[in-house]
Amino acid sequence: MVQALFFDVFGTVVDWRTSVARELAQFGARHGIDRDWEAMADHWRGLYQPAMERIRSGSRGYVKLDTLHRENLDSTLDTYGIGEVAEGVRDGLSRAWHRLDPWPDSAPGLTRLRTRYLLAPVSNGNISLMVQLARHGGLPWDTVLGSEIAQDYKPKPAVYLASAAALSLAPQDCMMVAAHNDDLFAARASGLKTGFVARPVEHGAAQTTDLAPESDWDVIADDFLDLAEKLGA
Amino acid sequence: MVQALFFDVFGTVVDWRTSVARELAQFGARHGIDRDWEAMADHWRGLYQPAMERIRSGSRGYVKLDTLHRENLDSTLDTYGIGEVAEGVRDGLSRAWHRLDPWPDSAPGLTRLRTRYLLAPVSNGNISLMVQLARHGGLPWDTVLGSEIAQDYKPKPAVYLASAAALSLAPQDCMMVAAHNDDLFAARASGLKTGFVARPVEHGAAQTTDLAPESDWDVIADDFLDLAEKLGA
Repeated sequence: MVQALFFDVFGTVVDWRTSVARELAQFGARHGIDRDWEAMADHWRGLYQPAMERIRSGSRGYVKLDTLHRENLDSTLDTYGIGEVAEGVRDGLSRAWHRLDPWPDSAPGLTRLRTRYLLAPVSNGNISLMVQLARHGGLPWDTVLGSEIAQDYKPKPAVYLASAAALSLAPQDCMMVAAHNDDLFAARASGLKTGFVARPVEHGAAQTTDLAPESDWDVIADDFLDLAEKLGA
Repeated sequence: MVQALFFDVFGTVVDWRTSVARELAQFGARHGIDRDWEAMADHWRGLYQPAMERIRSGSRGYVKLDTLHRENLDSTLDTYGIGEVAEGVRDGLSRAWHRLDPWPDSAPGLTRLRTRYLLAPVSNGNISLMVQLARHGGLPWDTVLGSEIAQDYKPKPAVYLASAAALSLAPQDCMMVAAHNDDLFAARASGLKTGFVARPVEHGAAQTTDLAPESDWDVIADDFLDLAEKLGA
């Protein structure tokens, strides 16, 4: 059906919220600080879309997501009244985004899918961030594609189209796999096939968004092993 | 010493000449044509530098090496008096460059090196070509860097510098590994560390070039297993 599978990463492949909250809690324990670390992870992540929007709109040139995460950390620390943190500690905290644990089915599912398809992250994360996550979680990518290749951020069409072009494939020979309906609407608009995998606790037990597919995506799967089954891998 | 190893691929990781000559011979056998297939492989490869030079000099915009290989095949077939080959057959022949066998020590050496370093091809080959070679030869790259990332061709500094920047590393935290002294002179000029591995039969038994290191490269190894040994992996 398709030759390559493109994966959203934050939320779809890795559980960013639990991992970031854990690193924030470890930081708190080391420094004798107590906060609601999951809420702080959500706040930090909440600054992600507006920061990218300045780049998508053209009011700022492309910078790596690592840079945005670091800037947004400064703002988050201020908001949580923890503004007295040294630069080196901030750098280390920001690298929490390089150590996100995959969902349990991600690596085994990708390993099965790899027997039949080319696999690449098409994430808003930059190349070095994706390489570190792959090492951390054993994710068997063929290469890293996505935002840094395109020098822009999803859901801009350039990110999907540049990723297909990098593999010398037509958009319809690629499938975007994501836990987010908006990512799939954008990928479909660029001519890619679409696969939805629900991640119902990405935002915690009270999650209300993306609990179900919002369109007739080409494949709808429960997890990456189910995806492998449905894609014949 | 360094965090990432960058590899030249054609000649350093894979034995392009034997592999291309073999595919040409198979093509000849299917079509009842006899030629000196190794000489024809050399001729095809010989058009590589002048084709890239037009792009390096700015007289042509960046196109993928796949495109140059395909154009150079047309010229080579004409030179060898085999101009009556169908388009589809030419496309298949050109993909010989996607099926190059690695030298015997390449995959085991890279697998050892991977335990300690990030690994990426920094080749003039395009991303999809590198992905196909990795699948064909079991080459465990972390991601594909090189010419397509930089939209230019080695030995232009942009290719080395863009590859280091993609991993968010300074040039001196990266080592270029190549069987070609000119690649290493260029990498060193851009601030990278250098590793030389001789491939004395890349051009056949009568090879006269790159038989020995021509400078005090940071590491000089007999093959990739020796390189792993010398780099502590």
